[in-house]
Amino acid sequence: MKHTISVLVENEFGVLARVSSLFSGRGFNIESLCVAETMDPTVSRITLVTSGNEQIIEQILKQLNKLVAVIKVVDMTKGDFIDRELVLIKVSAQDSTKAEILRLVDIFRGKIVDVSQNTYTIEATGDDGKVKAIIELLRPLGIEEIARTGKVAMSRGALTLKEAKKIRQGVENAGVLRS
Amino acid sequence: MKHTISVLVENEFGVLARVSSLFSGRGFNIESLCVAETMDPTVSRITLVTSGNEQIIEQILKQLNKLVAVIKVVDMTKGDFIDRELVLIKVSAQDSTKAEILRLVDIFRGKIVDVSQNTYTIEATGDDGKVKAIIELLRPLGIEEIARTGKVAMSRGALTLKEAKKIRQGVENAGVLRS
Repeated sequence: MKHTISVLVENEFGVLARVSSLFSGRGFNIESLCVAETMDPTVSRITLVTSGNEQIIEQILKQLNKLVAVIKVVDMTKGDFIDRELVLIKVSAQDSTKAEILRLVDIFRGKIVDVSQNTYTIEATGDDGKVKAIIELLRPLGIEEIARTGKVAMSRGALTLKEAKKIRQGVENAGVLRS
Repeated sequence: MKHTISVLVENEFGVLARVSSLFSGRGFNIESLCVAETMDPTVSRITLVTSGNEQIIEQILKQLNKLVAVIKVVDMTKGDFIDRELVLIKVSAQDSTKAEILRLVDIFRGKIVDVSQNTYTIEATGDDGKVKAIIELLRPLGIEEIARTGKVAMSRGALTLKEAKKIRQGVENAGVLRS
């Protein structure tokens, strides 16, 4: 099963190498990872996707929590969350295929962000399924290259990462009471 | 000066840790990084943004090139390229601010991807300037949290990462001839 994990870290040298080597050291492949600043420039937010045995992931999360630079670790997959990624796709554009490419871009609410005589570069966003779908539909038309950001994730509703665990328990209780 | 660097790597355990520690080991901060699969599932594409002394970056790129798992390294900043990132922004939504939030989302061609009683979660994409602008405009309305993917980058025109160096020299020569 895939896990989408969000980590808040202090901006220190080498924190990304330490976080990623915790996974690779256990033989876990990181399918995608992205990291960038938050509103607080001393804090970065990492979102990574990995898959594997539940118990071992639980262990890795505990080890992550022990790193001094790590402020918060949340396995988003355990709650209700949204994820999105952005993909740039450079596709071969021939006179016979241009209309079909533009139709697909329109359907997926993408944007053409660059044009050359024989190529269009498309920006598209969505969850995993949507990004896969546009790639599969463009593939027969001739994809020259793609660059994906990997997923970023956020809890649904008012919950933020900082308060994730505390409030999530409350939400879960509320759910139990409601049912 | 900021450098946006694209790296094609074989999907091996620990390659991300090795790539990122080359930068941190030299005292270079990685401002943002994203990595995900390409069309070939055995190859991932890393885009990272760093800033610092030109000569040292040149050295790091040479060292990156020497890593067995690294297929290609290109400093995109040396050519003509586009970059985009995606940001999720959870913003406090009061009756007095909802209309203004929706106006801003509309102007920036963003999307509301989640709603709760007191929050909107917005998806927006753009280059660095555009993402900064929407964050700055939403900030006084009360941003609860943000999650940014960091930049992905692609050369303009028909050039792909695999053939970047070879053709880029051609383009540069062409530019010299034209001028």
